[in-house]
Amino acid sequence: MRIVALAGGIGGARFLRGLQAAEPAAEITVIGNTGDDISLFGLRVCPDLDTVMYTLGGGINEEQGWGREGEAFTVKEELAAYGVGPSWFGLGDRDFATHIVRTQMLAAGYPLSAVTEALCDRWKPGVRLIPMSDDQVETHVVVDDPGHGRRAIHFQEWWVRLRASLPAVAITPIGADEAKPAPGVLEAVEAADVVLLPPSNPVVSVGTILAVPGIRAAVAAKTVVGVSPIIGGAPVRGMADACLTAIGVETSAQAVAEHYGADLLDGWLVDEADAGVRVEGVEVRSRPLLMSDTDATAAIARAALDLAGELS
Amino acid sequence: MRIVALAGGIGGARFLRGLQAAEPAAEITVIGNTGDDISLFGLRVCPDLDTVMYTLGGGINEEQGWGREGEAFTVKEELAAYGVGPSWFGLGDRDFATHIVRTQMLAAGYPLSAVTEALCDRWKPGVRLIPMSDDQVETHVVVDDPGHGRRAIHFQEWWVRLRASLPAVAITPIGADEAKPAPGVLEAVEAADVVLLPPSNPVVSVGTILAVPGIRAAVAAKTVVGVSPIIGGAPVRGMADACLTAIGVETSAQAVAEHYGADLLDGWLVDEADAGVRVEGVEVRSRPLLMSDTDATAAIARAALDLAGELS
Repeated sequence: MRIVALAGGIGGARFLRGLQAAEPAAEITVIGNTGDDISLFGLRVCPDLDTVMYTLGGGINEEQGWGREGEAFTVKEELAAYGVGPSWFGLGDRDFATHIVRTQMLAAGYPLSAVTEALCDRWKPGVRLIPMSDDQVETHVVVDDPGHGRRAIHFQEWWVRLRASLPAVAITPIGADEAKPAPGVLEAVEAADVVLLPPSNPVVSVGTILAVPGIRAAVAAKTVVGVSPIIGGAPVRGMADACLTAIGVETSAQAVAEHYGADLLDGWLVDEADAGVRVEGVEVRSRPLLMSDTDATAAIARAALDLAGELS
Repeated sequence: MRIVALAGGIGGARFLRGLQAAEPAAEITVIGNTGDDISLFGLRVCPDLDTVMYTLGGGINEEQGWGREGEAFTVKEELAAYGVGPSWFGLGDRDFATHIVRTQMLAAGYPLSAVTEALCDRWKPGVRLIPMSDDQVETHVVVDDPGHGRRAIHFQEWWVRLRASLPAVAITPIGADEAKPAPGVLEAVEAADVVLLPPSNPVVSVGTILAVPGIRAAVAAKTVVGVSPIIGGAPVRGMADACLTAIGVETSAQAVAEHYGADLLDGWLVDEADAGVRVEGVEVRSRPLLMSDTDATAAIARAALDLAGELS
């Protein structure tokens, strides 16, 4: 069975671990969001790709859901001693090595997809992980900053430094218009038996991937089942509501499905709390959606695959 | 009193600490060797500049004489886990931060001299530390490598990886011919009351600095006193003999002075073991030259300054 999943960070990575448990023999291709990539200290950081890689490769800090387990912060503290920031982005010593390798390979001319493959040679995540594009796409957020006026800031500055405390006026994946899908992305989608949308952020994770020209159309042509990241009107984790509000979408399982659209979605899994959700042209099923452990997550993934099987 | 010193790594840095103790009020400019700089993991590493900066700034690993005190090697181990080397160059986590800052500033267009000044803002070494040149000079060593034939390797590969175990056929500071002295180098020399040659490696440290067009002539015009790095026919530390042999100079206090030349040197301090040394046109004095602690080193520096005072 060939499965493609479009994944952001923590939520996507945890869903993928359940998916592997539910269907160990499946050939899984993960198309990873790169819109929240950022250059820090001259190093290229790809938070979502790394979260997937570390989570599936056994290197993740389970408690926080991102970064490496057992981290110390010597390099970051030393950079701060030089007066070099930012201090608000948590890069541990182990994590630094990943970004050093990536940056060195990018500088040598390797595209991000080749770099990601090389990094995965070590982690062996058990999926094929491909960035959505080798072209740089950076999600910027327009905010009304008291004292600074209206300005655009990098998504990470809004998300990590400000904890989305300033309302977003707009969220834009800069460069997405001209980005091309990375090699293998469209081929994997075309060859897939099913495309899954994990409960990742529908705006800045899945939405950014779908903003790369060609990807949405290729995905829409397949059997697509999504898992709602919203339960009972609130994000399961993270601050997806702040992103949804910025693009004028209500924070509800129904509104997210409608935002994805019936042209894209065939099936939609919602939580039991949202059992009443109906979306024209989309088969909606309700079941427990809390990814409390791998077994519970595997059961969610199993339900998504079963629904896809019915619909294809 | 204005003093200029041409310094390599460990020996030079320790001498400078003694010099500061001997003449606390002096305005000391250190012209640092950059010929053994190397790019590792995409980061620019300047071992000699950093050894001077860390030693005078209180951050040095006193026991080994280079690198930061209290180091862990997490980043390096992680790089190795990615299969990324070299493994033979010891970069600790704290040290990595220095190279990350340097690389980021160089990439942003700052010359190495400005970068060095910025790094010294943190360490406050109490001297003005200027790289010999902002232009890249890399010392390469030609060796006859069994199985590989005659080939040129980076100085650090010869020095650190091979421990100079293959005889050097030639030692060449690649790029020195076209390098320009960094801003402030010639001005500092011209304004100096005395120029000191610490007991640094006369070939790959002091020799490389003097190979930058303009520096040798500017130094030669001043009162110059050198401290022999050779005691009783052997280097005090390091493997200077391997370098001297490669350029056809005997490993002796006399031969090194003759190699520097009477046009350059005015005074030459040798150890008591070399009391018989005579060099045409150079005032030679003998005294204990082991830099066993800061007091002993300060006494050596004092003697060098006193000799310079007599000769100027």
